[in-house]
Amino acid sequence: MAHRAELIAVGTEILLGNIANTDAQILSERLAELGINVLYHTVVGDNPQRLREALELARTRVDIIITTGGLGPTYDDLTKQTICDAFGRKNVLYPELETWLRELFAARKRPMAPNNLQQAYLPENCTVFHNHNGTAPGCGFCEGGVHVLMLPGPPHECELMFRTGAEPYLRALSEGVIASHTLRIYGKGESDMEMLLRERIEKMTNPTVAPYAKSDECMLRVTAKAASAEEAEAMLRPAVDEVMGVVGEWVYGIDVDNLESVCVAALKAKGATLAAAESCTGGLIAKRVTDVPGASAVFLGGVVSYTNSVKNKVLNVSQSLLDEHGAVSEPVAIAMAEGARALTGADYALSVTGVAGPDSDDRGNPVGLVYIGLATPDGTECRKCEFGKRTREHIRMQAANTALDMLRRTLK
Amino acid sequence: MAHRAELIAVGTEILLGNIANTDAQILSERLAELGINVLYHTVVGDNPQRLREALELARTRVDIIITTGGLGPTYDDLTKQTICDAFGRKNVLYPELETWLRELFAARKRPMAPNNLQQAYLPENCTVFHNHNGTAPGCGFCEGGVHVLMLPGPPHECELMFRTGAEPYLRALSEGVIASHTLRIYGKGESDMEMLLRERIEKMTNPTVAPYAKSDECMLRVTAKAASAEEAEAMLRPAVDEVMGVVGEWVYGIDVDNLESVCVAALKAKGATLAAAESCTGGLIAKRVTDVPGASAVFLGGVVSYTNSVKNKVLNVSQSLLDEHGAVSEPVAIAMAEGARALTGADYALSVTGVAGPDSDDRGNPVGLVYIGLATPDGTECRKCEFGKRTREHIRMQAANTALDMLRRTLK
Repeated sequence: MAHRAELIAVGTEILLGNIANTDAQILSERLAELGINVLYHTVVGDNPQRLREALELARTRVDIIITTGGLGPTYDDLTKQTICDAFGRKNVLYPELETWLRELFAARKRPMAPNNLQQAYLPENCTVFHNHNGTAPGCGFCEGGVHVLMLPGPPHECELMFRTGAEPYLRALSEGVIASHTLRIYGKGESDMEMLLRERIEKMTNPTVAPYAKSDECMLRVTAKAASAEEAEAMLRPAVDEVMGVVGEWVYGIDVDNLESVCVAALKAKGATLAAAESCTGGLIAKRVTDVPGASAVFLGGVVSYTNSVKNKVLNVSQSLLDEHGAVSEPVAIAMAEGARALTGADYALSVTGVAGPDSDDRGNPVGLVYIGLATPDGTECRKCEFGKRTREHIRMQAANTALDMLRRTLK
Repeated sequence: MAHRAELIAVGTEILLGNIANTDAQILSERLAELGINVLYHTVVGDNPQRLREALELARTRVDIIITTGGLGPTYDDLTKQTICDAFGRKNVLYPELETWLRELFAARKRPMAPNNLQQAYLPENCTVFHNHNGTAPGCGFCEGGVHVLMLPGPPHECELMFRTGAEPYLRALSEGVIASHTLRIYGKGESDMEMLLRERIEKMTNPTVAPYAKSDECMLRVTAKAASAEEAEAMLRPAVDEVMGVVGEWVYGIDVDNLESVCVAALKAKGATLAAAESCTGGLIAKRVTDVPGASAVFLGGVVSYTNSVKNKVLNVSQSLLDEHGAVSEPVAIAMAEGARALTGADYALSVTGVAGPDSDDRGNPVGLVYIGLATPDGTECRKCEFGKRTREHIRMQAANTALDMLRRTLK
């Protein structure tokens, strides 16, 4: 049977909303890859009583407990002692950790305050997890059939210790592997996917298919459990093909990061370049494309033409076109895309002009009306979108997504 | 006695690590402002049995339960029915919600799939929370002394519904009022603030002062509890003045959203306009300025000059300057800012050129080296920043923040 895990984060700063529990996300993703089912995330404050209760509950419902946080040298770092009390282990000094700590402080030329020595204490007879990014070691042990692992709270310490210490510990426990592929979809929602695939989803047990919503897009994850990675992959391939047969039209990539990275990769593959002329998206497309490392190989630049004067002077959109049709119009979107293409010498240029709100524009165009242009070596197309009265942020995101999706379909 | 709250997130995608539980952070921060103690965060999957158990446990240990997620139209959206079962309420159709849903789909010109009607069902006799960013309404009700509030999972829906629906519901529960002012700081970290203010923070009980870190900036929240809003405000004023006397130099605004909104407001107040010329930030400054509603009154436009050719042709940076000093240099940053100002006719223009990584540039400039220019009616200044080897995203954010902070200091 698959192992069942609970993640318990210890930290009042999480309950106050000062920081998000990003450790839980990082660990959950890794545990899923190891085929360990994470059934619960729990967060308690720096409070021994409530941590103790959370531990007592967890040991009744899972066989792997992973705590994050509370391993440091200050008085509110209480995880180790509470776990020792709950699981009947002594908290003892590990001399090799004391040596390591003293050497670490000496190397950093910093005096070691006495409370730091607490970090060399761990439960008796545990597997020590070394900390390559900080001063608090972690550990794992098994008591009464329940594995207890302690990791530090700061995400860069937690993630590295998971990889170097906890993951080898956990791999030794498990049989088989879990593998998955993620189909990223734009232009159809989670409920559309479910309608299209419901019968298949219901009859599949291994591999399984599950839809997820993700702000303005959605994804389908196909997951298989098998004895080996090769076997899992062999089971996944026909399942992915079957799903692609139904929804492939809307899938912009498999195991990819996002629309912009797909566009950058497609441009690289073609040896082609891109420019952007943005009005209501105000630089969002350029920002997203240049989020992708290596974008400079394909993205030449962009113009944020937030006024008619910039549209006219920089992008060479004729004043008569602006006067006749207004800035939010198909002819202007086309002229902006063609202007950006001519100005930069790019092979492709996207343009966006529309009303992001909160108010309609001075010609009475409604919030959510957006024209998107795409100039290519073979001509220019334009799409009229009516996103409706959503937030400014949402309309801008939808406009950028729609533009990038138009580009990736053209590049396909 | 202060209310005690538990946040229960429902979503297998959180347990799989596909998304972080950001709702918990947003809500925790808001609840702290309302004086409600958040004692637990819990996450369960789309599993009625485990959600039921989490609800049964929560009702024994807190008096406010807030769920996020599981309100949508698909079969794994099970929060409402499970809560109705646990608290003995009928899940009933609210006709006004059905009307609203049908109108919403009609306005978006999309057919309404039958499963969407589930979203018009809520527990009998509840306070409806309208969803201004999506299709799933939420609600609040009280049963056996425990308040149960349901909010949608997508963060932009959750946050807005909290503000417009849940917050008024919760404010009505508390006696007295809690009021606070938030000082937003750029250029000094949380620990610097704590060092500067430690003695004051320790001796204050009401009002209190607390520092919070927030990615690349930090904030100080001054909070007072009193019988009325007027009384709380009267207590806050001298406390804010005292804190400003110590750290005012780094405070860019009180109760403001962010650096960009402060800049837009300052430009409006002066009747001045802005342009941007961005290289390594790739449109991020333009994007952030145009995130602010009404930015079109002051932001004329920008150029994303990701290549030397665009710097030269569009921004009129001379080729000899580019050849001699390289794109990442003080003379080019100055020429970019002045070029953007001349091109658009703006009063102020920001420029950014630097190395965001992951690799150093072809002249061997290290990752994190960024030059920021600011052209004004009184001349042009330039700042050299060495942000160090951080992530691409972090360097771009720091560069944009530093640029906006330079602008707001100049406009002050």
